[in-house]
Amino acid sequence: MTETKKVLAANDAFYRAFGAGDYAAMDGLWSRQAPVACTHPGWTALTERARIMESWRSILSDVPGSSVSCFDAEAHVVGATAFVTCNEAVGHNMLAATNVFVREDGEWRMVHHHASPVARAYVKGGPTRDDRIH
Amino acid sequence: MTETKKVLAANDAFYRAFGAGDYAAMDGLWSRQAPVACTHPGWTALTERARIMESWRSILSDVPGSSVSCFDAEAHVVGATAFVTCNEAVGHNMLAATNVFVREDGEWRMVHHHASPVARAYVKGGPTRDDRIH
Repeated sequence: MTETKKVLAANDAFYRAFGAGDYAAMDGLWSRQAPVACTHPGWTALTERARIMESWRSILSDVPGSSVSCFDAEAHVVGATAFVTCNEAVGHNMLAATNVFVREDGEWRMVHHHASPVARAYVKGGPTRDDRIH
Repeated sequence: MTETKKVLAANDAFYRAFGAGDYAAMDGLWSRQAPVACTHPGWTALTERARIMESWRSILSDVPGSSVSCFDAEAHVVGATAFVTCNEAVGHNMLAATNVFVREDGEWRMVHHHASPVARAYVKGGPTRDDRIH
């Protein structure tokens, strides 16, 4: 499997944990060695692992199962770091996300997640649609 | 100068170019060797350099001088890659940003910018304020 595919698999694992409300899986896929950050929709960045996991524990307890999906993921690998851009459907909300990963102990671990709302105009035929939202 | 400080200097250069409406500087600081992406507020990701620079040309022509500032920047360096989380004031809008850089030819070049609106509650004393917005 190429590193790009491994990164996309790690990205998929993030959304599976998110959609399943699986806190243990979510906790396991975030790096414990590198500095981490997380910018939830409408928030400023959280930059401490404990705060980030606390935020996920709260969010996961509110997300009904299977309401989260990821699509249009593109992974860019630079050495032992990678970032993914993708779109998320969380319930009825459409979001654009950036996910950053580092390779540690042979696994791609998340070090940053940034998700933000997408204006409907861009989702339904707006000038930046560009065939990325199907 | 440490690599972290160099990354923060590259991040500052991005906001100087943005605030000055300086398209040539903006074009110069984005990588020409690595894959790039850009997620403007409310947009999905652009993933072609030409589209990204076209978007900046349009945005820069609309931004009055000196209306852009960056604060609370934190840089995380992992080898030849780095990501910065920071907050932006663009006119009267408050945004949270993720900026990703790679080191090429001895310089830190931007490969990804993601900016998203911050809910006012988080800026003015909300539960996630956490002393990052002064």
